[in-house]
Amino acid sequence: MAGVFDNPVFPYFAFYATVVVLKTMAMSFVTAFHRITKKVFANAEDLVDKTKEKVSTHETVERVRRCHLNDLENVIPFVLVGLLYTASGPSLSSALLHFRIFTGARIFHTIAYLFALPQPSRALGFFVGVIATVSMAYNVLSAAKY
Amino acid sequence: MAGVFDNPVFPYFAFYATVVVLKTMAMSFVTAFHRITKKVFANAEDLVDKTKEKVSTHETVERVRRCHLNDLENVIPFVLVGLLYTASGPSLSSALLHFRIFTGARIFHTIAYLFALPQPSRALGFFVGVIATVSMAYNVLSAAKY
Amino acid sequence: MAGVFDNPVFPYFAFYATVVVLKTMAMSFVTAFHRITKKVFANAEDLVDKTKEKVSTHETVERVRRCHLNDLENVIPFVLVGLLYTASGPSLSSALLHFRIFTGARIFHTIAYLFALPQPSRALGFFVGVIATVSMAYNVLSAAKY
Repeated sequence: MAGVFDNPVFPYFAFYATVVVLKTMAMSFVTAFHRITKKVFANAEDLVDKTKEKVSTHETVERVRRCHLNDLENVIPFVLVGLLYTASGPSLSSALLHFRIFTGARIFHTIAYLFALPQPSRALGFFVGVIATVSMAYNVLSAAKY
Repeated sequence: MAGVFDNPVFPYFAFYATVVVLKTMAMSFVTAFHRITKKVFANAEDLVDKTKEKVSTHETVERVRRCHLNDLENVIPFVLVGLLYTASGPSLSSALLHFRIFTGARIFHTIAYLFALPQPSRALGFFVGVIATVSMAYNVLSAAKY
Repeated sequence: MAGVFDNPVFPYFAFYATVVVLKTMAMSFVTAFHRITKKVFANAEDLVDKTKEKVSTHETVERVRRCHLNDLENVIPFVLVGLLYTASGPSLSSALLHFRIFTGARIFHTIAYLFALPQPSRALGFFVGVIATVSMAYNVLSAAKY
């Protein structure tokens, strides 16, 4: 197992990992947009007029939050496993295939979630992303020879 | 602080980090299993028959989701701190002790959570895992000499 | 893009990354403190006297949990992007600026959240942290030249 990061795959990993992390962070702003436009806040100190409003929930806000949590559950494992996978010395073509499929799948998953596309749209985005991460995990475990 | 990854500890870290990340990801499938068999969905588009069913929650599904969130709160810090710890050049025996104790503790925590074992089972799994991560964090901070 | 970690920025990154991860983990103990002192548990097996008590929620506990989740949504992206940023070979002064601003912003965010300080306190802590991470992400994407 090559333990160094000065391999040709690393800059590509850095690119895709950063893209999917930024996509995950963007969910905070989608949540904030809906909270502000719909006046749906989770904290008393966020209310503009405490005499008239109170904390509440809204299906659209909860939907974006579920999408955000699903990103945490899938994007972070991708970045962690992807870093170990990159260190294991994969071929550039194989690595790019994994990174691109995962990134595409998660962007599709986000669209399917936020616009409530009919199933199995969202499930497909989820599963393809999981398969990419598990395939990289398999490569890491094989390289670790343990 | 040795800043390279071609050290003998790295392949072992890669192994245990991948195992605990895969365990965390497995929670998604346990959740999906209970959602499908119990017909408990969080999104309207997931309902099979929209005229008869509506979105709902179920204690078993919520339990698995709490376990999953607890994994995110503990397994991801372990992998992040563990990577920095591995880079700090620990002895192989000390590193393996940390990795194995954490991995064992989190597998026990998952069993204790999913099967609702009497306390302090789950608390024990949680605390032992935290101690392993905090001990690694202490080593990183010492090595960083800051 | 320099792909190695034996650069002068790494020990500083290791320090700040460990500090913010430990801060995130500390939220578990703040939650546990409030759950135990207020007898507010999420799991039936956590109840001391099952004949008298039942699982419940409490605004203070939920507030700490929202703070913890917000940390997962922001601190983990910081550590992941920060690692790639460190590998991209930034100047030490620029890197320290990013790490210190982020760490300060998140400590302020935690205080603002837990003590329910009037807005825009918490929003300020949140946004400053996001700007630090996005700025590092921009540097990574530029270095990746893709």
